[in-house]
Amino acid sequence: MLLEQTHLIDTKDLSQTEIEEILERAAFWEQNRAKNLVPFAGRFVANLFFEPSTRTKFSFEVAEKRLGLEVLNFSTAHSSVAKGESLYDTVKTLVSLGVEAAVIRHQEPEVISELLERDTGCVIVNAGTGKTAHPTQALLDLYTMKKHFGHVSGLKVAIVGDIAHSRVARSNLWCLGKMGAQVMLSGPPEMRDPDLEKFAPYVPFDEGLQVADVVMMLRIQLERHQDPIFHAQDQYHQMFGLTKERLNRMKPGAVIMHPGPFNRGVEIADELVEHPRSKIFEQKANGVFVRMAVLEKVLQGGQEL
Amino acid sequence: MLLEQTHLIDTKDLSQTEIEEILERAAFWEQNRAKNLVPFAGRFVANLFFEPSTRTKFSFEVAEKRLGLEVLNFSTAHSSVAKGESLYDTVKTLVSLGVEAAVIRHQEPEVISELLERDTGCVIVNAGTGKTAHPTQALLDLYTMKKHFGHVSGLKVAIVGDIAHSRVARSNLWCLGKMGAQVMLSGPPEMRDPDLEKFAPYVPFDEGLQVADVVMMLRIQLERHQDPIFHAQDQYHQMFGLTKERLNRMKPGAVIMHPGPFNRGVEIADELVEHPRSKIFEQKANGVFVRMAVLEKVLQGGQEL
Amino acid sequence: MLLEQTHLIDTKDLSQTEIEEILERAAFWEQNRAKNLVPFAGRFVANLFFEPSTRTKFSFEVAEKRLGLEVLNFSTAHSSVAKGESLYDTVKTLVSLGVEAAVIRHQEPEVISELLERDTGCVIVNAGTGKTAHPTQALLDLYTMKKHFGHVSGLKVAIVGDIAHSRVARSNLWCLGKMGAQVMLSGPPEMRDPDLEKFAPYVPFDEGLQVADVVMMLRIQLERHQDPIFHAQDQYHQMFGLTKERLNRMKPGAVIMHPGPFNRGVEIADELVEHPRSKIFEQKANGVFVRMAVLEKVLQGGQEL
Repeated sequence: MLLEQTHLIDTKDLSQTEIEEILERAAFWEQNRAKNLVPFAGRFVANLFFEPSTRTKFSFEVAEKRLGLEVLNFSTAHSSVAKGESLYDTVKTLVSLGVEAAVIRHQEPEVISELLERDTGCVIVNAGTGKTAHPTQALLDLYTMKKHFGHVSGLKVAIVGDIAHSRVARSNLWCLGKMGAQVMLSGPPEMRDPDLEKFAPYVPFDEGLQVADVVMMLRIQLERHQDPIFHAQDQYHQMFGLTKERLNRMKPGAVIMHPGPFNRGVEIADELVEHPRSKIFEQKANGVFVRMAVLEKVLQGGQEL
Repeated sequence: MLLEQTHLIDTKDLSQTEIEEILERAAFWEQNRAKNLVPFAGRFVANLFFEPSTRTKFSFEVAEKRLGLEVLNFSTAHSSVAKGESLYDTVKTLVSLGVEAAVIRHQEPEVISELLERDTGCVIVNAGTGKTAHPTQALLDLYTMKKHFGHVSGLKVAIVGDIAHSRVARSNLWCLGKMGAQVMLSGPPEMRDPDLEKFAPYVPFDEGLQVADVVMMLRIQLERHQDPIFHAQDQYHQMFGLTKERLNRMKPGAVIMHPGPFNRGVEIADELVEHPRSKIFEQKANGVFVRMAVLEKVLQGGQEL
Repeated sequence: MLLEQTHLIDTKDLSQTEIEEILERAAFWEQNRAKNLVPFAGRFVANLFFEPSTRTKFSFEVAEKRLGLEVLNFSTAHSSVAKGESLYDTVKTLVSLGVEAAVIRHQEPEVISELLERDTGCVIVNAGTGKTAHPTQALLDLYTMKKHFGHVSGLKVAIVGDIAHSRVARSNLWCLGKMGAQVMLSGPPEMRDPDLEKFAPYVPFDEGLQVADVVMMLRIQLERHQDPIFHAQDQYHQMFGLTKERLNRMKPGAVIMHPGPFNRGVEIADELVEHPRSKIFEQKANGVFVRMAVLEKVLQGGQEL
């Protein structure tokens, strides 16, 4: 329950109403993007990224600064975490300094769960935890779909690639279901996750491709996999990548999405990244407005606009 | 002499009047913390941290931003110090760029002394030098005591732990003496410093504990020590740590302090860190206001408030 | 053509009129430096430094913040470049987030050229590329000369040191020629570049010294060179460094310049760095105003001042 906890940890916890409120508010921020409104001026937020990230970290940083927030960027290399301090003590320290929200990316979801069991006095926004959740990514994906199609309900969304390791797949699955979309999962058999297939059917890629309104390709980390086929990028691309040939078999009006960072020529053909049907860079633009909406909601009580 | 030098290097150099002025001004900043006053808007300060730090660096950064200062964060990994440039040339360069104050943490106190021998054109605030000085920590400790007890004069303060290596012990010792408090030093015999015992008596921990108004535990870096007892955290904790049992023998009304980062279960029992008698996180909160007062004093001439 | 491309990549591309406009506007920013004008408030710029840098990076950061710009600092260590993302995709992502200008330092000039062949949607400011170009350094050098002498035309400028590896030499050479100054190149024979000597004569150091209005010493990286004379700093200093003795043979009114970071006692005598004839730290101060002018020009359309 977002409103009770005031945290944003997983799209599982969000009601349809809460999702719609966030999307509406994101639209407000997009419409007013040129106005330099700064309702949270003089208030502090910290970004704690325990994994490398460009787009998510900068997306939050832009969202925060556009709201007028002062930003503390925490990097493990220059911090007392080197001295063995726990995340709880780090966050509690930041709160003592005046920080009201912590945006955290961490490999271990348990670290966030443990944090929430204790009262740090600040709201937590999950910026990506291991393979479990990446709620702001899913919300910006929804926003992108709604902007394009006018609605999310009834859309068919094929999520394709390394489902087993994907926090993006999971967060989208929970969200899309609540909003009345139909999700299909696809990708190499080695990358399936039977637990998720209780909630969304697994379909062969070329089958999903023909019925999907949204083809959401996931990043493939070939270096993670043992099977020889994953060492041959070309072979992977031909079997499971979005090729130009496959684009032609997509439904009229269907769009391509990808959370990034993408591997050109692996899960998506180089020339499709910026194809007119691709929403990839628009997703990034939308991410700023969605994160502004999320921060505004968890922080509450900025200046009246 | 703070007013003459305009630097803040060591609490040794501060008069009682100067200390009181800083504490009073810190109280002003605490009282007005919600007001988003920014008297130094458009002016620049640089944080130069040559040792890892979370709380001190972020505490200064928050203090600076609350004053409206623009902040340059200097990290050795991304700087020309890698190319062998001296600190003097670095600071002089920053001054040329418009920086008016440099907040410096450095392992070698001589580096700061050498810097002060030459005219850089900017004020220096010491954010911790080796084992010699950490003046803003001592000032925030004083502020915390004054806020709790209403006065510092007459207080009995036991500083406990690795005295020999502690810049916090030294800076507190000079400050507390000037303000009329009585300091006792305690801790393992291997961690005593005979030079400091000219200024404050060494007492057995359990003796100091019973008379102290403030029990200030220091961080222990067990890995630094050769003696086998320091390799057994439990053993150290029983002999020289603030245990729950020892808490019960503290004087009524006495408080626990710790400069952080703390080792839960080593120098302080886990459950005492956030005990009602503990001022540990309040110290961090107070640090922001004290650092605002220090920066304001060394920079002078902000906008009238 | 700066106006057409709106990028600033190389002084080769600038007309005399464009250079003069930048210098005039830099003078405006210097005159109004105390006013806290922020014509670009709420707009975003990113600094992407793929080489270590102190003064250039901070100089841009100060310039940006003085214009009111919000700054994203990109460091390779904490970014998806670690995951193999191309610079084009990184910049395109930043643009999607709202970034309007990217200030880039990179070892490989080709990386910037490739970037310009595609439409990223943002303006690029070159903050130093390999040995080819460092346009804002050359512009600040011109500004420093014009401020001192009242004009650049007719000045004799001796650029001395490792000409072959110097982007500063190249960018100054193109600029100074357009502004009517006469450039001479000098330094050890091993560090000559015959290609540049089509545009400016090579002269023995002691000959150039006697006629130059500006003696611009370049940073020497002795560790780069194989020849044994470059391993003896003293020997290098005597043969090719600006010694106190050589200062005495400089033309009356002539000034010393150096782009920094300098090696005291190698290419310039320690006591000459801050000699009254040295413009070294003034160059750094001027750099902020020149970079404000450059950013203003490439970004255009800030608030009316």
